[in-house]
Parts: sequence; C-alpha cells; structure tokens
Amino acid sequence: MADPRDTTHRDALVARLGADAVRWDDDTLTKHSHDYWCLGVLRLMRGTLTARPLCVVSPDNTEQVARVLEYANQHRLVVVPYGAGSGVCGGVLPADGTLVVDLRRMNRILDLNETALTVRVQSGMMGNAFEAALNARGYAMGHYPQSIDVSTVGGWIATRAAGQYSTRYGSIEDILLALEAVLPDGRVVRTRIGPRASTGPDLRHLFLGSEGTLGIVTEATLRIFPRPETSVAQSFSFASMDAGLQAIRQFMRAGWKPPVVRLYDPIETARLFPDASRGDNALLLLVSEGPAALTTVETAACAAACTANGGKSVGTAPVERWMLERNQVPGFEPFLERGLVLDTIEVATTWDHISDLFREVIAAIQQVPGLLVASGHSSHSYPQGTNIYFTFVARPEDPAQAEATYLACWAKAMEATLRCHGTISHHHGIGRLRLPWMAAEHGAGLDVLRAIKRTLDPNGIMNPGVLIPA
Amino acid sequence: MADPRDTTHRDALVARLGADAVRWDDDTLTKHSHDYWCLGVLRLMRGTLTARPLCVVSPDNTEQVARVLEYANQHRLVVVPYGAGSGVCGGVLPADGTLVVDLRRMNRILDLNETALTVRVQSGMMGNAFEAALNARGYAMGHYPQSIDVSTVGGWIATRAAGQYSTRYGSIEDILLALEAVLPDGRVVRTRIGPRASTGPDLRHLFLGSEGTLGIVTEATLRIFPRPETSVAQSFSFASMDAGLQAIRQFMRAGWKPPVVRLYDPIETARLFPDASRGDNALLLLVSEGPAALTTVETAACAAACTANGGKSVGTAPVERWMLERNQVPGFEPFLERGLVLDTIEVATTWDHISDLFREVIAAIQQVPGLLVASGHSSHSYPQGTNIYFTFVARPEDPAQAEATYLACWAKAMEATLRCHGTISHHHGIGRLRLPWMAAEHGAGLDVLRAIKRTLDPNGIMNPGVLIPA
Repeated sequence: MADPRDTTHRDALVARLGADAVRWDDDTLTKHSHDYWCLGVLRLMRGTLTARPLCVVSPDNTEQVARVLEYANQHRLVVVPYGAGSGVCGGVLPADGTLVVDLRRMNRILDLNETALTVRVQSGMMGNAFEAALNARGYAMGHYPQSIDVSTVGGWIATRAAGQYSTRYGSIEDILLALEAVLPDGRVVRTRIGPRASTGPDLRHLFLGSEGTLGIVTEATLRIFPRPETSVAQSFSFASMDAGLQAIRQFMRAGWKPPVVRLYDPIETARLFPDASRGDNALLLLVSEGPAALTTVETAACAAACTANGGKSVGTAPVERWMLERNQVPGFEPFLERGLVLDTIEVATTWDHISDLFREVIAAIQQVPGLLVASGHSSHSYPQGTNIYFTFVARPEDPAQAEATYLACWAKAMEATLRCHGTISHHHGIGRLRLPWMAAEHGAGLDVLRAIKRTLDPNGIMNPGVLIPA
Repeated sequence: MADPRDTTHRDALVARLGADAVRWDDDTLTKHSHDYWCLGVLRLMRGTLTARPLCVVSPDNTEQVARVLEYANQHRLVVVPYGAGSGVCGGVLPADGTLVVDLRRMNRILDLNETALTVRVQSGMMGNAFEAALNARGYAMGHYPQSIDVSTVGGWIATRAAGQYSTRYGSIEDILLALEAVLPDGRVVRTRIGPRASTGPDLRHLFLGSEGTLGIVTEATLRIFPRPETSVAQSFSFASMDAGLQAIRQFMRAGWKPPVVRLYDPIETARLFPDASRGDNALLLLVSEGPAALTTVETAACAAACTANGGKSVGTAPVERWMLERNQVPGFEPFLERGLVLDTIEVATTWDHISDLFREVIAAIQQVPGLLVASGHSSHSYPQGTNIYFTFVARPEDPAQAEATYLACWAKAMEATLRCHGTISHHHGIGRLRLPWMAAEHGAGLDVLRAIKRTLDPNGIMNPGVLIPA
C-alpha cells in the first residue's frame, strides 16, 4: 500500500495528466471515500469511515485513463473507478492509499447517428445531461433510472443498471451496442459497433456488471429511440399483490410490452398513493409508448388483462403523481439521524416463484428485532418473471446495533430470495453488500469469474473487495 | 497426438461410458470428420480429407460429458464437440487422433414451465424434434433457423445462431435464459434461471459463440412463446434494394417488429420468386405475428412505410412460396460435381453503411476470375441496421483452382465488409473459414479472448484451430 505522505505517485500522475487533473485536498478525498451505500453514509456520519484515498485523478480522455492504469499497474497501486458515487451497494469504498479515477470530465457526446439510431458518448457523462441532449434532438435513451440525476453512463454499465422504462426499451445490456474499455495494464479494447454479430463470445458482457474489477469503461455506443408519438397512462387497483402479478404475467405472455409496469403492495400504495388506497389494495401503474396505433391496442389489451384479474381502473392520477416524484431519491441521512436503518433490496425470479418470494422475503425481514416496516413493489417485468423492489425500515433498540440490524435484514432477505429461486440482485449490483451470497448465486460460475479476474488483472489492482469474494 | 493404433484411450473411455457409447468404425469416423463447410465437402469428394478422429463418444448426460473431458484433459487429448454437423464454417474438422463428442444422445426436454414460459432441454436435441414437441403443447421456440432439421440446440448456442423470426423473438442470445456447461477440466457450471440479474458479468455470453473452444454446453433453458393468435403475411416490390432497405429502416425506427423481414435483390427475386419478378425489382416479404389487435396495426404501419418508399403490394403468394421452401438447405455436392464453387456469406452493419456494404461486397466478389453470380438478401433487421446474406457461385477455369477461387471470393467479401464498417459474421460464426479476419474484427479484444481461452483451457484441448487464431 502507498504511504499517504509519500508524494512520488501523485507527482508522477501530475506529470502525466497535468496538475488540475490530480487532487488530494480534504474535501475531494472525503467526497470520493464512499458511494451511497447506507452503511457508508452511516459510518461517515459516525466518523468511523476513516480510510482515505491517496488522490483523485480526473482524466479527460481514454489515452489519459490508459496512462493512469499503466502507471498504477506498474506500481501495484489499487484503483477505484468513480462515476457519480450514487451506487448503493458499497462498490466504491476505497482503502487507504487508493487511486480514485473520477470519470466525470469525460462527459462528451462524440457522435449522434440519426440514421443508425446510435450515440457514442464518454462514460463519465451524467445521465440527466445526456438525456436532455438527446431530447433536444428528438430522441431518448430508453434508459431512465431513478438515479438519472446522480449517475453516469459508465456507472450504468458497471452495475448492469435497469431503468424505469425497461419493459419496452430494455435494460442497459440491451441498449449498449458497443463499448471501449481500458484494461488494467493500459491496453484499450473497443468492441465493434453493429446491430448484431456472431464472432465469438460477446466481450461487452465482460464489462457489463464488472463493477470496476476488470478495467475502466471509457466510451459507450448506445441505441437511441425517437421520442414516441404517444404516451398513454392508466392505473388499476387490485384486491391483492397476487392478482396484480397475474395481470402483468398475462399481458406480458401475450407479447405486450408497455415501458412502465409498476405494481405496489398495499403498504406502499397507502404511503405513496394515498388517494388511490383503500388500505388493503395493490396499485398497478402502466405507461404505453409508441405510435398511436400501437398504444391504442396495447392499452386496451393490458386493461383487459387487469379487468380479468379483478382490477378496477383508477385513472391517470397515480401515474401523474409518480411522474412528478420518480426521480426523488430520498436521502438516508434524516432517517439515520433519527436512529433508523433502512434500505431497498431489488431481487427477481420467474413467475412460478414470485408470490412465494414476495411473501417469504417480507416474512423473513420481519423476523429481525426492531423491524418497523417491510414492503415491496414490482417495477421491471418480463415474459418469464419480474423483480420485487423491497423497502425495509428498522429501529434497533441500541444505536450501537445499527449496522448489525441493517445487515440482519439483508441476510434474511438474501437467504429467503435464494430459497425461492430468486437472483440476489436485479439491477443494483453486488458491491461489498451482497458479496457473502455470490457463491450461492453462481456456484462454480464464480470460479470462472475469478479465473477471468486473475487473467485480466493479475496484480489485483482493480477495485478489490468488490463483486468477487477473495 | 494419440496414435490411432493405440487402444488405451478408447478402452478407458469404454470403461467410463460403456461400449455402446464409444465408436470407431469407419463409417462413424467419416461422418464425424467434417461439418458442412463447402471446402470440407469438396475435400471429402476429392479424397483429400484424410484426417481421422480417434473415436466418437456419445455421452448420455452431463456427468458423462464431465468424465470424458476430465479424462481428455488429463491425457491432453484434443476434443471436438459435435452437434448435428451442419455448421458451414469448418468449426468441426477434427485432426488425426481427436476425440469427437457427439451430443445427440442428450436429446431430452427436462422441464417445460408453462407459467414462466421456459423450457430446459439437453443440448443435443435436434431443432425440428424440439420445435415439434413445443408446438404439440401450444408453444414455439421463436428460434427457427433454416437449419432446424439438421441442427441442435447446443449448436445454436455454440455458433450464436439467429432464426428466421428473429426480428420479433430475438436471436439465440435473447432466447437463452440459462445454460449448463462442462469446462475443459470437467467442472460443471450452471447459470441461474431468471428473468434478469445484476450479479456480475453474464457468463452465458462466454459460451454463446464459443464454438466448442471453452467447454461443452450440456443443457439450456430457453424462453418459449405461446403460439401466436394470428400470423399475417404481405409482400412488396421495390424499384431497388435501397428503396426496400429504407422502408425496413423506417418501420423498425418507429418500433414495429414483424418477426419475418426479408428483402431480396433483383437477382434473387428473379431466381426464387419468378412470379413476382420484373427482372430489376427487389422483393420484401413480411410476416407479423401476435394478437390480432397487434398484427392489424403492425401490418398497416409496415405497409405504409413500404408505400412511402415506392413499394407496390404483391400479395401473399411470395410469402407462401417461401414458407414451403424455407427449410430446404441446398447441398453443395451437385454443384461441386459440376466444377462450381459456391457459398453464402452473412455479414451485417448499421443503416448508414448498409447500401455501401451491399454494393461494395458484390463488386469485390465480382472481381474474382471465374465468378458467375453474386447476389444478396437482407433477412434479419434491427432498429440500428440489418444483415446481408450474400450468395456467390464461381467456376474456376482449372478445377485444381477450386479452393483458391472459393477462398478468393471469401477474402474479397470479408475485406469489403470490414472497409464498410461491417461485422464479418452475422450468424454463422467463425470456424476455420473466417479466422484470418478475427484480428481485424476485434482488435485488442482478441487478446482478451485469447486470455480467457488460456485460463479456462490451459492445455488447449478444446477444438483448436477454430475461432481464436493461434
């Protein structure tokens, strides 16, 4: 590990990238010492997050990223890539002496191809600026995560993100056509831009979800979508979560793909949509987009599936309310200050297991002493299944038990998910938080992942402690 | 290399798998000494294909595949996985002494899940039997390659295949939900069955397109689709290939996805659809599938895009003709016997390059002495671009120049494709045929692929000479 008093590395990086690209002031180091994992925030508030990066470098282009990694690899400096720091699983929690690579200077759209409907962009571009630039030209990304104001293109790729409109437009792996990445030794890999190929294993998928452990993604070519001709909202109230899940399953089975499909359990319906709550009902929000001819028939077909499952139309007001509030990412701090611990947990499974998974995860979390509430909604559906996005809040009797209570809720949820044939993460990734369940998730596949890690990053410089258990 | 007179290995394999699972009679060895690559067929006809496998083993289950690979790895025996031998790029061309693993005994459907719309199947099941079994239950695979009568599930995965209905249902990577594979050392990897996950790099994509170089795929879990409520055909005649390509681009841009989208150039229109040919027109076949409400509006929207580009409706007859003939894979032998060499070459690029690519590849092939005809059609479209499936026929003046003429046509086509920003294969894979252009296709990505190969197959036993240039 680098000695923080030794200026050798910082001087060498300044020589390579220029003085304005290398910072080690207190404020910069603090801001880059964690992401938005609840426990990172808690430790920062309590003063127990004491690790400090060596410095933060802000490269301007791919060539500079390559020079930084080449240097780090030569000198065995640990590197943590940093997007906008909004990850929620502890994927960014640099140890003392780490070199943090902040990619936000690499924020340019390099090419917008209106014929091929593609855009090439640097990985550090912020989501909201990117979407706004596309909107101004009459296009949209199709990828619209709740974090769009506080996340980068590269962050979506590194975590295998999914956006709120994924049911029609796909998740990031469907939208990403090609990428450029710098390997730990400084070599630059570019995958070919094209609609589809059969030329061996698809190397995009090495970096999608790699969480900074295999290299740094520097550019992405993404699909874009012309702004839709129409957008039609509707919502339905159901007697139960199960009835709503059946309705979704049925219209997805028939091949309909409304971009927004969100089903809230009674607790979340009461909290988020009081005007549509009877106390015990589940609420489904739907948005269809596309040519008017399509949205007209899709809206009717989805409504018919809802009605067939006892759903009652409750108009467009709940969708309008959601549209206004959907990007508000509530901060952990006010809750933590009041002695609460809380988080969201997104998992997924196939339709045959989803009812069991929903019930069993809630029941499992409820066993944790101090638990106040556990609820959930489905927000990303597929013909084969759906996700559930759980929320829990607990108040440990002893504030010193905050971390233990938080981790107990997670452990209960992960174990119940695995028992119910679910995957441990739908779209937030692994980070440090889910590391203990990677072996159960992947079995022997984890050995393959480890072998790939060893061969691409033999010195283990890239974001150690994340994604791949030692 | 194993000495063919030495029976040690065959005896050992008999002891592990049973006598009926290990064969080395002349007929079996001949049948497994090549796939359906034109040059393999030519060499067999001319008696110049002399290499002989050591034996052919036919495992019945995953455990037996693991035992075979473990043995082969210990003894450094080269292994070539074999599906149904219909690959067209020389992916199966075992050297003397090779152990061929024929997977066709592993042909069982293990689980059909009608709630989750998934099917788990052994990798050696033939396409036609698989589709028929699903059809009998009211489902379809969505994957319907021309080779469906002569290819296996595992073959589609190994080559990253695409079927005739891919525009709506996706290619094999979209349809494959999970897989089981045996690594070269006998370890078994199973990926999790689920609708979607964010748990690190997606290991399915290591094996999709791996062409037997990283292990053997033993099981697959695939999406299934309820048989569509309606299927609506239409076809349009265009003044040029370019006009037809513009029409496709426009309706795909709007978000329509008819499963079948096939545009034939004037030469192929005249040859395959004489009733619809005026000699200089291009012909577009479209099939929409799904709920009646969807096919009605999709059919109208596609027709409007065709009309806007000067397309004239020519009814359903061309589609009906194609439906009758679409699985007939013409044999090379009758042509080769007459002194002709011929092949098909499928490549793809984005819409902004597709007209140039079409023209330049045809022009490049036409430069080869002896060329008789070069033509093409588009058969798999995307919002970002499309493929072109070229066909060439040549008659070298000197029959001894057959291979050289054939390879010259390929070289011209590959070079022109790369110049026009195309990928060198859309869905047939690399095999031995396209090996010389892998470096140009992937750049530094090829180093990554090589590193993965070395770490997963350190002894290099799995299908050497294929996919990854030495």
